[in-house]
Amino acid sequence: MAGASHVLQLTDPLPLDGGGELARAEIAYETYGELSADHSNAILICHALTGDQHVASPHPVTGKPGWWERMVGPGKPIDTDRYFVICANVIGSCMGSTGPASVASDGKPYAMRFPVITIRDMVRALVALLDALEIDTLHAVVGGSMGGMQALSLAANWPERAARVLVVASTSRHSAQNIAFHELGRQAVMADPRWNDGDYYGGDAPDSGLAVARMAAHITYLSEEALTEKFGRNLQDRDAKSFGFDADFQVESYLRYQGSGFTRRFDANSYLYITRAMDYFDLAEEHGGTLANAFAGTGARFCLVSFDSDWLYPTAESRHVVHALNAAGAAVSFVELSAPFGHDSFLLDVPALDRVVKGFIE
Amino acid sequence: MAGASHVLQLTDPLPLDGGGELARAEIAYETYGELSADHSNAILICHALTGDQHVASPHPVTGKPGWWERMVGPGKPIDTDRYFVICANVIGSCMGSTGPASVASDGKPYAMRFPVITIRDMVRALVALLDALEIDTLHAVVGGSMGGMQALSLAANWPERAARVLVVASTSRHSAQNIAFHELGRQAVMADPRWNDGDYYGGDAPDSGLAVARMAAHITYLSEEALTEKFGRNLQDRDAKSFGFDADFQVESYLRYQGSGFTRRFDANSYLYITRAMDYFDLAEEHGGTLANAFAGTGARFCLVSFDSDWLYPTAESRHVVHALNAAGAAVSFVELSAPFGHDSFLLDVPALDRVVKGFIE
Repeated sequence: MAGASHVLQLTDPLPLDGGGELARAEIAYETYGELSADHSNAILICHALTGDQHVASPHPVTGKPGWWERMVGPGKPIDTDRYFVICANVIGSCMGSTGPASVASDGKPYAMRFPVITIRDMVRALVALLDALEIDTLHAVVGGSMGGMQALSLAANWPERAARVLVVASTSRHSAQNIAFHELGRQAVMADPRWNDGDYYGGDAPDSGLAVARMAAHITYLSEEALTEKFGRNLQDRDAKSFGFDADFQVESYLRYQGSGFTRRFDANSYLYITRAMDYFDLAEEHGGTLANAFAGTGARFCLVSFDSDWLYPTAESRHVVHALNAAGAAVSFVELSAPFGHDSFLLDVPALDRVVKGFIE
Repeated sequence: MAGASHVLQLTDPLPLDGGGELARAEIAYETYGELSADHSNAILICHALTGDQHVASPHPVTGKPGWWERMVGPGKPIDTDRYFVICANVIGSCMGSTGPASVASDGKPYAMRFPVITIRDMVRALVALLDALEIDTLHAVVGGSMGGMQALSLAANWPERAARVLVVASTSRHSAQNIAFHELGRQAVMADPRWNDGDYYGGDAPDSGLAVARMAAHITYLSEEALTEKFGRNLQDRDAKSFGFDADFQVESYLRYQGSGFTRRFDANSYLYITRAMDYFDLAEEHGGTLANAFAGTGARFCLVSFDSDWLYPTAESRHVVHALNAAGAAVSFVELSAPFGHDSFLLDVPALDRVVKGFIE
């Protein structure tokens, strides 16, 4: 389907958790469907690390369908015939919202002068967008993976802004292993001489390092079972091992493809900044060390969904959030779905997820 | 303790699974204890990917104790007062045995002219060493991780050469996920411009890429629980997040340290070749597609050990080998040990492993 593309220029500087502020921030977003007269039918969808605002419309660089076309559209679980769906590119990213590749006040790209941001900073920008759209209370905020972190952050810090909070395959904090994989990716980018301390705009980008980072991340998005099911030890376009260093195995070829394809649509510095924001995310820490405090007095209804094959944000992380919501007296439902695809299950063909989303949204 | 250091120059060319042969191969090895008059008390210990022959004597580069000092020595589970212990650097490595950094017949380092080798090729070199030492039958062959692959390969292809086969935290084949992590590491090395298609000897080595590869591998060696227990979200030498890209978290600092330390003792091309050999490993494929065939008629006793927190070579992989040994009618014992450290448990303080090793060896 076609979305309507917009860019909002914020008039006020955006305060940041790190202490500074972001002046003249722009927020690129897509909308689908019609906002009702009383502005009560809006659903905000928050995207994941390398996602963007094109949730249900073709990606302008790759031409591929929107990343959640299966979920968003007329008659779909998030029904654009009924709801006004908003999806905005997070600040720090590279698809139109202000990020490290954007031009600063001196006319040059921010690069590493861009401030380190947090998940809450991203959400603060989204709240500014809701203000501009005169949406006081969302029908729902929805997100998977890093999108779920944003949904939780919105619910915790702006509790009056969403009546329903749907969090899929996510977590309230990054674990040591989560941080480790992200640090690996950042080091891969920074090891590429073309990264040049972030000053590569106008020249060659650190595509080699970014591709390695993407490969590492991609392994964490798939379950061991999914990799075995999909590739096993199958060879790629050959009958026998080459006894060389070509991509003999399908899984090698697949990873190389994922890595190189990613560099065509994503900015390496954005990858650094967004992974950093995710690593910094610890919702309990923001609220005196007790996660239940984050949700004290909330009137929203929550739904948490995890996947049994997700080893990046395993079910225990969702359960941890559910326990905190219970302690806070919040209305919460929780389901662990069985799906073979690992963390990526939230993006893939899992009909049970469609039903959960549809049932909770209505 | 002190080992005796030796280098064996093979007189005959070493045939390779890839079709060629390795001329004038050298095998660097350490021995501990005394070979009995009838040559019946020898134990061969096979090392892991980045291990070496210094199993129970200080590493010549780092000065650190041998990698299995806790297991090998006088009065220890592998008792050098009773057994003659041999540990040899695998071919393809960089601690004295012939590998890509070695000088070829033209007087220049092999670099990427070194032939792609297999686990069986490594074992073929070890068998040549046993021949030279006039050891017909080992009291035991012992190995963890890639060392376990070698032990299995010896048992399958030279069944008369070992009376006991002890395989710890290993597998009979590399899974798609195992291959994926290795490919990630290889791509990290190759993405480093200093790698220069492998021709870096005498100049700057691709340390940045190799460090990233090591970081990736290191994450797979530890369990999620071990990382959480050891580091959690603790900050490194600071009271608050820096809102920058320094190693704020202890786990980041630890990974950077592991990465950079590794480059001081290991050759990047060796890393490529040895990971390739591991990825190629599929013992069933070598024996008509049926793993049990690999062990048909074996007279050896086997012991398989796995760790419940090892997600690199999980217990299911050991059980798969045990089933094949059962099908082949072999004498086999199997134990899954509970240890929190993940794959690295085989190298760390797990007293139950000491008891299993001691009990099986005697």
